[in-house]
Amino acid sequence: MAHTEAVTPEALIAAMGARARSAARTLATLDSSVKAAGLRAAATAIRRDAAAILAANAQDMADATALSTALRDRLLLDEKRLEGMAAGVEAVAALPDPVGRVIDASERPNGLRLSRVRVPIGVIGIVYESRPNVTADAAALTVMSGNAAILRGGSEAMNSNRAIHRAFAAGLATAGLPADAVQLVPTQDRAAVGAMLAADGVLDLVIPRGGKGLVARVQADARVPVLAHLDGNNHVYVDGSANPAMAQAVVIDAKLRRTGVCGAMETLLIDRAFAQPVELVQALQAAGCEVRGDPVEASIGPIVASVSDADWDTEYLDAIAAVALVDGVEEALAHIARHGSHHTDAIVTEDAVVAERFLAEVDSAIVLWNASTQFADGGEFGLGAEIGIATGRLHARGPVALEGLTTYKWIGRGTGQVRG
Amino acid sequence: MAHTEAVTPEALIAAMGARARSAARTLATLDSSVKAAGLRAAATAIRRDAAAILAANAQDMADATALSTALRDRLLLDEKRLEGMAAGVEAVAALPDPVGRVIDASERPNGLRLSRVRVPIGVIGIVYESRPNVTADAAALTVMSGNAAILRGGSEAMNSNRAIHRAFAAGLATAGLPADAVQLVPTQDRAAVGAMLAADGVLDLVIPRGGKGLVARVQADARVPVLAHLDGNNHVYVDGSANPAMAQAVVIDAKLRRTGVCGAMETLLIDRAFAQPVELVQALQAAGCEVRGDPVEASIGPIVASVSDADWDTEYLDAIAAVALVDGVEEALAHIARHGSHHTDAIVTEDAVVAERFLAEVDSAIVLWNASTQFADGGEFGLGAEIGIATGRLHARGPVALEGLTTYKWIGRGTGQVRG
Repeated sequence: MAHTEAVTPEALIAAMGARARSAARTLATLDSSVKAAGLRAAATAIRRDAAAILAANAQDMADATALSTALRDRLLLDEKRLEGMAAGVEAVAALPDPVGRVIDASERPNGLRLSRVRVPIGVIGIVYESRPNVTADAAALTVMSGNAAILRGGSEAMNSNRAIHRAFAAGLATAGLPADAVQLVPTQDRAAVGAMLAADGVLDLVIPRGGKGLVARVQADARVPVLAHLDGNNHVYVDGSANPAMAQAVVIDAKLRRTGVCGAMETLLIDRAFAQPVELVQALQAAGCEVRGDPVEASIGPIVASVSDADWDTEYLDAIAAVALVDGVEEALAHIARHGSHHTDAIVTEDAVVAERFLAEVDSAIVLWNASTQFADGGEFGLGAEIGIATGRLHARGPVALEGLTTYKWIGRGTGQVRG
Repeated sequence: MAHTEAVTPEALIAAMGARARSAARTLATLDSSVKAAGLRAAATAIRRDAAAILAANAQDMADATALSTALRDRLLLDEKRLEGMAAGVEAVAALPDPVGRVIDASERPNGLRLSRVRVPIGVIGIVYESRPNVTADAAALTVMSGNAAILRGGSEAMNSNRAIHRAFAAGLATAGLPADAVQLVPTQDRAAVGAMLAADGVLDLVIPRGGKGLVARVQADARVPVLAHLDGNNHVYVDGSANPAMAQAVVIDAKLRRTGVCGAMETLLIDRAFAQPVELVQALQAAGCEVRGDPVEASIGPIVASVSDADWDTEYLDAIAAVALVDGVEEALAHIARHGSHHTDAIVTEDAVVAERFLAEVDSAIVLWNASTQFADGGEFGLGAEIGIATGRLHARGPVALEGLTTYKWIGRGTGQVRG
């Protein structure tokens, strides 16, 4: 802008939204090859501008002395991470484009030919925290699915995000994509997030990427639909008929492969009929996990901490597991129905009837039989990437990738049919 | 309840929601045949209780002297309408059940077999106005799709709704379905609607059925996802290459077959290159339609009323059409983008290239080529029934029937896979 009049956050988001809507109209009709070429050009621009991006990141790191080591590590970019970012954008460009895909088609008795066809959602807001790579990841998935993106990153990564966005947008422009396909909110004023969340009809969807505080705020305040998960309070139920060795392997992987991911197991439910509960708990402890249980659970092993009611609802995101003995699948289902967060739950059993009952009755986005909950991931599901995991009940559940960023419309081709 | 303590609307909805959630868990696992048997038993009960339902309706009619003739007609039940209601419930029972349908399936390189399977949404609130048949229609669609319903009808139909609900629930119980599968909010306190709209996590979805005032209130106040359409400001664009006879037939049907339905045409866009604009406008007028246009449009016929800017955004729901001359499909697309309500828009043309551009670029739930907008209807689309038409961008668009009342979950079947 030529002069520096105060712009309210609402006016800012409305203006960005109008430009995004215009860009979205263009993006919706682009061939897959054009969108892919745009993303490849964006990846090239990120590599080309590596020095500027790393310098911007160094500035953020210098300003971020108050952050914890973990947060500083999330913020940090180096040449390897930058190359990973560029390669990630190229990987999205190589994914099959869902736009235009025919979901189903029919010919009505009157000759009207109907089809349901995938179309982009429109304008998608992404609100995220300290990881600057989200700028490129989210932009790539949004553009490849034919949507316009309005990005709002964390203030601690402001300089990095601006540099990445500048490169990304320049790359898209090289390939002839609309300049407003990906916009970065230029202010760190928190009111801008509020304006995004209130912008019903301007933004079609908001996706929060970050910690529970961010997601909770977005879910509480949004008037715009939100795709997200708040908790991953995931369970593994080890049935009486489970193979003990498989149970150990699945439980240890589900809890400890990475403890900070949303697909990690938080509560272990063990059937009283299971043959080796002591060995299972001890194996978990030997692998470095604190196991919390009631006195009744203590009978099966040296459980060091007692469990409180709150534990059943706690997502530790740490090397801690709550354990409960249950009477078979019935009680396991009741426990999960009461305490689960509808994210990912697993059963280990050799009994197919019990397994199918668990798969049918557990009301979660992802339900697994004889596999680790840590598979809750778009890449592991063959989606190529993910913008996040959703635990809401509408539109898209579980890992959300390109298809989850589309909707559909009905197209009818007639020969003059009237309803008469 | 044994005594008559005051219950707040919030507590009432929370208690009904908890019972509905429990019923929904059972409904989600029922065989299609069991749900269908429940609906057939409900239809039988409606027929059996015809005298009681008609007596309740007579009471409503006696209380409704202040209502308009149109509203009284909507409220009125007679034996024929009651039989239509029962037959409608049986028709839903005969529809294919979407629950359990596999959307897609794959086997990952590690042997994990993944599938996405349709499951019910959960607990669905329906808020509706004077037509008592919605009690049975909405209940049938909700139960057949495996969901629990919380119904809140209009106060003018209170006695009718209670009698229909009593019969419906008794029928379901006969067939062994949960008693709380379909609940009717027992109070006409308007705060109960507010409590439903605020009950995020208790209700999974709210569907308003009624006039624009009701839908607008629900959309404005809801913290729960809403499936609805506010406006059906639909366009027919008659392209230069249109067959004039087909254009007349489609336009007259789109506008006048029924003027009060959401799929009716409201604005007619005529290409300046179209050969017979005068004949088209005159045919519409001869069929009883008031045609509003600018002076420039008046050059093509005896347009009686001038058009104001507001007309382009007005859903007349009457024998009135706004007409605009446009320069080809480009200007038609721009007009629809600016004034459309994303419901149903149609093009009449013999030019397939122009048609495909229109079908691709018009951002509406339903886009038609050489067919009347009045086909916007679940029955006409082969869905067997509809709970409504949605113009939102997420989850379901256009006519929403059984499939639109489901969501999906991911099911993975492994052999001990860990992510490692």
